[in-house]
Amino acid sequence: MNAVAELTRLIEGRVAAVAAKDVDALATQYAEDVTLFDAVGPLADRGADVERTRLETWFGAYRTEIGLRIRDLEVTVAGPVAFAHYLFHVRGTMRDGAEVAMWVRSTVGFRKLAEGWKIVHEHSSVPFNGATGQALTALRPTGTAGD
Amino acid sequence: MNAVAELTRLIEGRVAAVAAKDVDALATQYAEDVTLFDAVGPLADRGADVERTRLETWFGAYRTEIGLRIRDLEVTVAGPVAFAHYLFHVRGTMRDGAEVAMWVRSTVGFRKLAEGWKIVHEHSSVPFNGATGQALTALRPTGTAGD
Repeated sequence: MNAVAELTRLIEGRVAAVAAKDVDALATQYAEDVTLFDAVGPLADRGADVERTRLETWFGAYRTEIGLRIRDLEVTVAGPVAFAHYLFHVRGTMRDGAEVAMWVRSTVGFRKLAEGWKIVHEHSSVPFNGATGQALTALRPTGTAGD
Repeated sequence: MNAVAELTRLIEGRVAAVAAKDVDALATQYAEDVTLFDAVGPLADRGADVERTRLETWFGAYRTEIGLRIRDLEVTVAGPVAFAHYLFHVRGTMRDGAEVAMWVRSTVGFRKLAEGWKIVHEHSSVPFNGATGQALTALRPTGTAGD
């Protein structure tokens, strides 16, 4: 399997792991010193332990399964370095009853370490409206009628 | 000059180009089919022409110089592929009188093409507050007392 196929499978494998709320399967993909720019605050954070806690908090906030769907994935790789970007749709019902159905942008940087490909950087976000300061959580990718 | 030094210089050169509102100097850094995840809407966009228009709109919205400052830059490179991430502070006065002083996260993907290093992906954002839906434009990097 070439590196693009391997990284594509790794990213697509996250969908099932999120649906299963499998923190271990996800946390093992991160390098120890990963730099995290998450969709919700803080501005920046660092470390696989921080990411593990973030995943536990995220999964704990949903009373339903979290439905994830990825589109427009592009992977760029050379030797032991790669980056990927994609859009993902997250859907579910939170413990407080709030229904989430939101498209998020994600960019991931990888390094191939002795243990295999690891995420050394992850940046997830939604854009905001400069006039109102509101995060634009209802946007859809071009050509998406539903959701 | 090695690739990390070259890419560092390219990214740091953007500070002067933004201060000078030099659209050409910035637009030439983008690959034709660059994928853009910008801090303000839409969700995603594509193309160096779109980026040029975005820069013109951005620069036109300020009545002062735009002060840019970069920190925590990390560049990862292998052969003709690289990615970088950093925080930048943007400061200035808009035409409507609004004072902007905001930290933004940025991740950039590069490919070395025949013409040199080009940006094939750029992702800029601020996080948002999941409870209020507001973009968190007043966050500061850890260890930053001012701004």
